[in-house]
Amino acid sequence: MAEPATATEAAAPAVALLKDELDIVIPTIRNLDFLEMWRPFFQPYHLIIVQDGDPTKTIKVPEGFDYELYNRNDINRILGPKASCISFKDSACRCFGYMVSKKKYIYTIDDDCFVAKDPSGKAINALEQHIKNLLSPSTPFFFNTLYDPFREGADFVRGYPFSLREGVSTAVSHGLWLNIPDYDAPTQLVKPLERNTRYVDAVMTIPKGTLFPMCGMNLAFDRQLIGPAMYFGLMGDGQPIGRYDDMWAGWCIKVICDHLGLGVKTGLPYIYHSKASNPFVNLRKEYKGIYWQEEIIPFFQQAVLPKDCTSVQKCYIELAKQVKEKLSKVDPYFDKLADAMVTWIEAWDELNPTGAAVPNGKAK
Amino acid sequence: MAEPATATEAAAPAVALLKDELDIVIPTIRNLDFLEMWRPFFQPYHLIIVQDGDPTKTIKVPEGFDYELYNRNDINRILGPKASCISFKDSACRCFGYMVSKKKYIYTIDDDCFVAKDPSGKAINALEQHIKNLLSPSTPFFFNTLYDPFREGADFVRGYPFSLREGVSTAVSHGLWLNIPDYDAPTQLVKPLERNTRYVDAVMTIPKGTLFPMCGMNLAFDRQLIGPAMYFGLMGDGQPIGRYDDMWAGWCIKVICDHLGLGVKTGLPYIYHSKASNPFVNLRKEYKGIYWQEEIIPFFQQAVLPKDCTSVQKCYIELAKQVKEKLSKVDPYFDKLADAMVTWIEAWDELNPTGAAVPNGKAK
Repeated sequence: MAEPATATEAAAPAVALLKDELDIVIPTIRNLDFLEMWRPFFQPYHLIIVQDGDPTKTIKVPEGFDYELYNRNDINRILGPKASCISFKDSACRCFGYMVSKKKYIYTIDDDCFVAKDPSGKAINALEQHIKNLLSPSTPFFFNTLYDPFREGADFVRGYPFSLREGVSTAVSHGLWLNIPDYDAPTQLVKPLERNTRYVDAVMTIPKGTLFPMCGMNLAFDRQLIGPAMYFGLMGDGQPIGRYDDMWAGWCIKVICDHLGLGVKTGLPYIYHSKASNPFVNLRKEYKGIYWQEEIIPFFQQAVLPKDCTSVQKCYIELAKQVKEKLSKVDPYFDKLADAMVTWIEAWDELNPTGAAVPNGKAK
Repeated sequence: MAEPATATEAAAPAVALLKDELDIVIPTIRNLDFLEMWRPFFQPYHLIIVQDGDPTKTIKVPEGFDYELYNRNDINRILGPKASCISFKDSACRCFGYMVSKKKYIYTIDDDCFVAKDPSGKAINALEQHIKNLLSPSTPFFFNTLYDPFREGADFVRGYPFSLREGVSTAVSHGLWLNIPDYDAPTQLVKPLERNTRYVDAVMTIPKGTLFPMCGMNLAFDRQLIGPAMYFGLMGDGQPIGRYDDMWAGWCIKVICDHLGLGVKTGLPYIYHSKASNPFVNLRKEYKGIYWQEEIIPFFQQAVLPKDCTSVQKCYIELAKQVKEKLSKVDPYFDKLADAMVTWIEAWDELNPTGAAVPNGKAK
């Protein structure tokens, strides 16, 4: 666990599960080793790379990968005025990749995340575990003390209601990180040397009604079930805040999954997070968010969606309305963000004309 | 993990944390190896043994242990007519031990639970981990993806509201089991060979609003914070149900902890559960519970305690009232159980005259 695994250790290419149904979305790749490291696992899949900065710079993708690359000019050309909802100079731009994908599943990963090793020293195929998580049901209505009851060697324990054992469809699989933990700037500053070396061999459903801090470093989701809510907000260039893109998406998707009866899992798989970002830069990006989240989180904890919100789009538009009503008083930024949320849905539906008819995924 | 640890492996006696503040409560000890196995860890503590069956039979406690032993005659003598609330011929009688203890903390364990090994082969001091769990705060209002933020090498992750990082007092620490998992009779019958070999190195707070199946095999709690709600109900002799004693207590304590702002943790420590109970006998004990829990759990999920319930006793009496109102229609048994819940509180307050003044433990 102390070091990442190498491509060689990963040995034979993994069986490409859901090969034709999953896209890997990566914001700007600054690190040439990144794709080589993941080659055995990623090469069978289609990559969507969304470049966050200067469009004149060229990203070198090693040979053998099947990919499409979008820079800011492409985003502006494809979305026209609606491109305003996509962040610039921030990895939040990755959500454009979710929008242009035509696949059922998305896996997104940061370019400073490498292949981790499990406690036996074996390279972890993160994608395979995410797919397992997404293809097995979630259990948001009652806690199972042996964690994911659908894993091999586990089940529902005594006292778990039988009527809830069917579970519900899983919309999101949130993976974790060994080595550099995902800390905020104050915690980074206070604990610069802390490393996550604890491999917790568990996957669990985050219970209904409970919010969590969703990190976009190592994240998979079912685009058909929850895609239109996976908007990473307005961050970076021209915005008063950064590093809250994935958090914002996490609060929104959790409220909507809870409303639609969909599941969100967290835990395995781990990736190896190689590099701590600069805590001073992070502090500048985060400081408003650290303050605002004290009001945003109670807002999301109390948010109720009306019964007629039967699709992700309807839920998201309703949430945008509530953001405008209740968070604009925190800062005018939320007024702009609420508008961008609506623009995002308009853009999504334009690029995904059948998207509006996506079933709400409610468990039978 | 495949075999329990031996007393010899456990080597030097552990440091007796909270020695004068914790009692170990054990229902009938049928297994002479049990206390020998645990000697290095349990000997410094006071034991309360509650014998569940024939009072004329004598339980042999090996030399060197400091203990008090109660049989049915003792319970009848001490509680008089109120003894009716204590189950007979069922390990649910253990809750009498919670009532007669004068200590702040209780650890309760079954006599078929031995010392487990961690993945490195080291004997696990279960009591030590429970004490760590109870002495560090819980975080029921927001999920931390790196699990217990108070463990060494862990913290709150990015996006965790700072206002919630103080946490709340921990009232309950629910430990797990390697080897024989705690399955209901139908699952035992379907998976007779399943063993729990997965050591999940995590402790976590069960979020507010989420119920869980609390198992009494390996359980610790703060008697001052939640003791009067740790009633194991009417089970066994003369009752239509068994094996729901700990479940009943778990539902009650969770609703009350959520109301009073107290925390419930689950995960580490593991014990080694040596022996599966007979699934046919279990089925007879459980079958009504399996049916009833489909109505009991929604009842507890919807239970709301009024604001003036500021002590555990007041909460529990209110819950008894609601059980009578809403569950008696499921079966007349619940009418009897609701009465026993009131009797239990009366008996508790009689034996713990200052108990009524126990603070509600609400976080500052």
